[in-house]
Amino acid sequence: MKNFDAIFNPKSIAIIGASNTEGKVGYSIMKNLMSFEGRLYPINPKYDEIFGLKCYKSILDVDDEVDLAVIVVPAQAVPKVMEECGEKGVKGAVIISAGFSEVGNCGLEEEVKKIIKKYNIATIGPNCLGIMNTYNNLNATFGKIFPNKGNISIISQSGAVLTAILDISPLLNLGFSKIISIGNKIDVQESDLMEYLMSDETIEVVVLYIEGIKDRGFLNAVKKLSKVKPIIALKSGRTEEGSKAVSSHTGSLAGSDEIYSAAFKEGGILRAETFEELVNLMHIFSTQPLMESNEIGIVTNAGGFGVMATDMCEKYGIKLANFEEKTKEKLRKKLPKTATISNPLDIIGDADTERYKNAISSLMEDKNVNGLLIILTPQEMTKPLEVAEEIVKLKSNKKPIVTSFVGGVSIKGAKSYLRKNGIPSYITPESGVEALSYLYKYSKMKTKEDWDEYLEKVKEEFEEIKNNNKETIEKLFANLNEYTAKKFLELHGIKIPRGYIAKNKEEAIRYAKELDRFVMKIVSPNIMHKSDAGCVVINPDDVGEAFETIINNAKKYFEDNEIEGIIEGVLIEEFVDGLEIIIGGKRDDIFGPVVMTGLGGVFVEVLKDVSFGIYPITKEYAYEMLKSLKSYKILEGVRGRPKRDIESVVDLIVKLGVIMELYDEIKEIDMNPVFVKEDGKGCCVGDALIILKK
Amino acid sequence: MKNFDAIFNPKSIAIIGASNTEGKVGYSIMKNLMSFEGRLYPINPKYDEIFGLKCYKSILDVDDEVDLAVIVVPAQAVPKVMEECGEKGVKGAVIISAGFSEVGNCGLEEEVKKIIKKYNIATIGPNCLGIMNTYNNLNATFGKIFPNKGNISIISQSGAVLTAILDISPLLNLGFSKIISIGNKIDVQESDLMEYLMSDETIEVVVLYIEGIKDRGFLNAVKKLSKVKPIIALKSGRTEEGSKAVSSHTGSLAGSDEIYSAAFKEGGILRAETFEELVNLMHIFSTQPLMESNEIGIVTNAGGFGVMATDMCEKYGIKLANFEEKTKEKLRKKLPKTATISNPLDIIGDADTERYKNAISSLMEDKNVNGLLIILTPQEMTKPLEVAEEIVKLKSNKKPIVTSFVGGVSIKGAKSYLRKNGIPSYITPESGVEALSYLYKYSKMKTKEDWDEYLEKVKEEFEEIKNNNKETIEKLFANLNEYTAKKFLELHGIKIPRGYIAKNKEEAIRYAKELDRFVMKIVSPNIMHKSDAGCVVINPDDVGEAFETIINNAKKYFEDNEIEGIIEGVLIEEFVDGLEIIIGGKRDDIFGPVVMTGLGGVFVEVLKDVSFGIYPITKEYAYEMLKSLKSYKILEGVRGRPKRDIESVVDLIVKLGVIMELYDEIKEIDMNPVFVKEDGKGCCVGDALIILKK
Repeated sequence: MKNFDAIFNPKSIAIIGASNTEGKVGYSIMKNLMSFEGRLYPINPKYDEIFGLKCYKSILDVDDEVDLAVIVVPAQAVPKVMEECGEKGVKGAVIISAGFSEVGNCGLEEEVKKIIKKYNIATIGPNCLGIMNTYNNLNATFGKIFPNKGNISIISQSGAVLTAILDISPLLNLGFSKIISIGNKIDVQESDLMEYLMSDETIEVVVLYIEGIKDRGFLNAVKKLSKVKPIIALKSGRTEEGSKAVSSHTGSLAGSDEIYSAAFKEGGILRAETFEELVNLMHIFSTQPLMESNEIGIVTNAGGFGVMATDMCEKYGIKLANFEEKTKEKLRKKLPKTATISNPLDIIGDADTERYKNAISSLMEDKNVNGLLIILTPQEMTKPLEVAEEIVKLKSNKKPIVTSFVGGVSIKGAKSYLRKNGIPSYITPESGVEALSYLYKYSKMKTKEDWDEYLEKVKEEFEEIKNNNKETIEKLFANLNEYTAKKFLELHGIKIPRGYIAKNKEEAIRYAKELDRFVMKIVSPNIMHKSDAGCVVINPDDVGEAFETIINNAKKYFEDNEIEGIIEGVLIEEFVDGLEIIIGGKRDDIFGPVVMTGLGGVFVEVLKDVSFGIYPITKEYAYEMLKSLKSYKILEGVRGRPKRDIESVVDLIVKLGVIMELYDEIKEIDMNPVFVKEDGKGCCVGDALIILKK
Repeated sequence: MKNFDAIFNPKSIAIIGASNTEGKVGYSIMKNLMSFEGRLYPINPKYDEIFGLKCYKSILDVDDEVDLAVIVVPAQAVPKVMEECGEKGVKGAVIISAGFSEVGNCGLEEEVKKIIKKYNIATIGPNCLGIMNTYNNLNATFGKIFPNKGNISIISQSGAVLTAILDISPLLNLGFSKIISIGNKIDVQESDLMEYLMSDETIEVVVLYIEGIKDRGFLNAVKKLSKVKPIIALKSGRTEEGSKAVSSHTGSLAGSDEIYSAAFKEGGILRAETFEELVNLMHIFSTQPLMESNEIGIVTNAGGFGVMATDMCEKYGIKLANFEEKTKEKLRKKLPKTATISNPLDIIGDADTERYKNAISSLMEDKNVNGLLIILTPQEMTKPLEVAEEIVKLKSNKKPIVTSFVGGVSIKGAKSYLRKNGIPSYITPESGVEALSYLYKYSKMKTKEDWDEYLEKVKEEFEEIKNNNKETIEKLFANLNEYTAKKFLELHGIKIPRGYIAKNKEEAIRYAKELDRFVMKIVSPNIMHKSDAGCVVINPDDVGEAFETIINNAKKYFEDNEIEGIIEGVLIEEFVDGLEIIIGGKRDDIFGPVVMTGLGGVFVEVLKDVSFGIYPITKEYAYEMLKSLKSYKILEGVRGRPKRDIESVVDLIVKLGVIMELYDEIKEIDMNPVFVKEDGKGCCVGDALIILKK
């Protein structure tokens, strides 16, 4: 692990580019660092003294060990000062200076990278706001706000987004521990930090703002961290237009959003869709316990808002708990007769503090209620602040409570009181339901396995197959076409139709006799759409004639009518059918092997109904991939149609993941269609295409 | 039109149930009404004086004309006092009292209804908060807040939702004109009010909170009003769970949410999805001009938020404008060299007030920019309040501006300044984009036709057909089955396959000879799934045998093997194919004739991909119905498949709407499948089912 202690818990800090001039970044940083409890060494050849401290011409002049260098000199000067830092034996650096790859100066960035490597300096930035650690009053940023101590850590790829969060935090009473503006990520990546944050006991929630990930270690690192601490991420650049803006913004290449979503899902990251959601989730995760089941109770003094919250429950996978009998009895005694004892519990417009208290305490004790949403609107009899006080008294570390006091002037005070006392207060009941749903979502995510025995077994088997068939595989890869691609898959125990390549009419006739129903198709890597080219014939009466037709159509397909060397022959293959699905593999620059699946035909073509998984894909995750398809119901069998062999599809997804992992030379695989048979009868690859890296 | 002037502009008001006791509703109302500029008459046999005014035992004792009665007596006493109001000649009433249909006392409500009819009293409520008119200081509610004068009118079915909005309004500087808590809608319905609000010049935006609509006039009324004033509606009770909660809340029956959505769409209503969205939309519509085109400009000092806003643009159908050349030139001169001149316009983290001013004014003058989103995060150089002041100076009634100052403590003052000066300030850039998109959406909606010549023509034609074929239709309806249902459609010029009913083998053989390819199916209203019952045969070699098989299978279908009287024969019908779609009609209790359409097979069954229209359905709207289908692309022809005859489907939808309108005896029609042929070749009804009202 990189020396993060030098960065977050230094005993001495050099500020290279410190300044006495207000308005300069080097001034703001000095000012912010003055509250730091360790030793400070401003470095600037122009000054003798800064903020009352002795100022040095160079870090080499400092007669003390320096743990951390904070660098704010112009970009061009950074290599020189970093070199000096290296000589001085500095262990950590935060390069604030901008003017590197984000404006196209990639050469300069490379130069600095070499120095970092040479001296092994843990370096954050360049082009960043800096870092903070509230637990030792370390504010190595040029921002205005130093937040309260707390359990949240943020890693942000944008200084402005970070600043906005810090600016909001006093209003919501959010507290932080380590804060990192990560900048261009010349050295320290998100994954390095994950490892460090894992063991930091002050941190209970990790927040990421991401524009683009650069390191392949990311997925592994978040998988480990998310098992112990919730990670909430906002990633911008979803749409194509958005991605364009990212590139011009930080020079970071945004990957395809679907793959990010898959990575977040597999990594156990909770993805916030908007900035507002990000803040809402920080609020609940930093203050409330998790929710193991999805059944909640709602208390409201306004039926309408109860209904709106209920509307949202379905959207977010939340259920309204059935209250226990004893709860109902308690409520019947305490509530007016006109109140219906149901969930949402409408305690009616004239509800006073006492009624709120009774309702909430009853629900807190109810075993069927796993979380509470308390809604209040300003009514004649309602005293918002008093109700808030009761809620704070009833808060527990066993059961999450969120509130939505809907209104403005009348509930302002109550809202801040709640927030000050660790109870999230949302603008609308809808946000409350959404936030609770994430607590539940995380509870489920953190128990998910990243690896299973089956995956292990497949990997071992496939490794052996790879080792024992080196020559065969080499030969197949040297001459890839539908037939050889399928043979490659068959070698790994994947079912393909029985088939033979006929080089001439006579062979075709002979092979056809061995099969019951069969398909004849041209074998040529150069003909992409075989059917359209007239090169597929199903079960012809005259096999010889069909052979000739196919060969002739293939000739017509090429401009020069020349097929010598680009046609392998005609594949005579057992006819197979079943529900058509697509399973494909590709290699993502950042996340590595990716498997995609979706149902054939309109589902993929028109509705883009596909899902992605990143290696390692467990059986559990492969199931999830299928279940997340809108068309999943078709696999399960709808309206009298048979259930399909889902298990065999899951198996194939897992296997393709392992194949992509083991055979690095493969760029893409398409199994399209795969025919899925009825439950228990497996599936069979109808057509396959393998593309190798160049 | 009802006498709404008596309600909103009364000269004299009687408060029946007025009280001197604090805490009572009758007290709060008296207190609120004291600022009213007309004459007040408190009525309560218990008091001689209330709030210094003479109190009367009965309204009949008042020696003056009374325009409006506000009634707060217990529910049981309401009929008596309403009767007295009638005798007194009161023209308008607001019944605040609860305890009617919402708690099951429907009889009591009916009783009051009769009195209202007898005396023709325009009555709002019961079970409501009351009404307000800010323009004459009329506050006939028991709420705490009387809002500022302004251009918004609210009609709310929930007092609490209304209260919450009013409570928020000072923070956002929202101003109101007429405010109506509509309660159980015993007399005055939303539609009545629409008509009244239309001509009220103080009102520019109408807001509805709806739990359930009761009157059929609603759609027509909103269609008219939305042409001149934007209507924003929040409807709760979307999901089944939600609907359940509605029923127990106000006793109002929530209709199916899809039909509400269709009604809102056709009625030109902007539907807010959440309470937060409702408030956001009130904010923009009450302060900003409309946006005729969907191209906006974004100015930001934080790249990350620019990207997030861009991400949202696609979601909401908003485009980023290409700036004019002269704008680019201006910007190049005024912005630092490191700023890229593109949209979003990132004026970089060190942007000061001057830079904001230059960027905004340039974009305000750009013809390609139809609306502006200004994003600000609290940075070192940024002075939020100063920027806010510049924005207010640059505001125009030609081009909408919204802002999103993202942060908390640093931007609080600037936010209120913006709001005070009529510029919406949203929590996040995403909400800003969303709000702008609604301005554009409304611009498009208000120019939509509700009626077209074609619809007129079809209606006239069908009326004639109906009149000229009374007997035929009566006969067909007396004996409805697939064959007669199709004949009924054919009578209206709808294409069905050529076909005959064979009563015996010989007839079957004879008819089959007349057709090229054909289908044979049983004709019996008692066999729902003909194929499953083995009662459909396609193009058999031996027609006689097929006839017998069908008849035998039909016998087996019934337990007693008896088909006498329930089988009409076997339909021998020309074989038709094409893309299968479904078009159906039903009659909604509230909105009347509804037409549904969707693509056949998995699209309807698995994905529930259907859309609805309510009569009158114009060609334009029928197109929209089709275009809103996820599977619409299939009709357009995807991946080499042919474009289908969309025009003919549109025609069929329009016609089915008219049929449902003209034939009130029809409860439901299913045309399933309709075979849609290639473009220009029309469509043909494959099967039809008509169900009459009992």
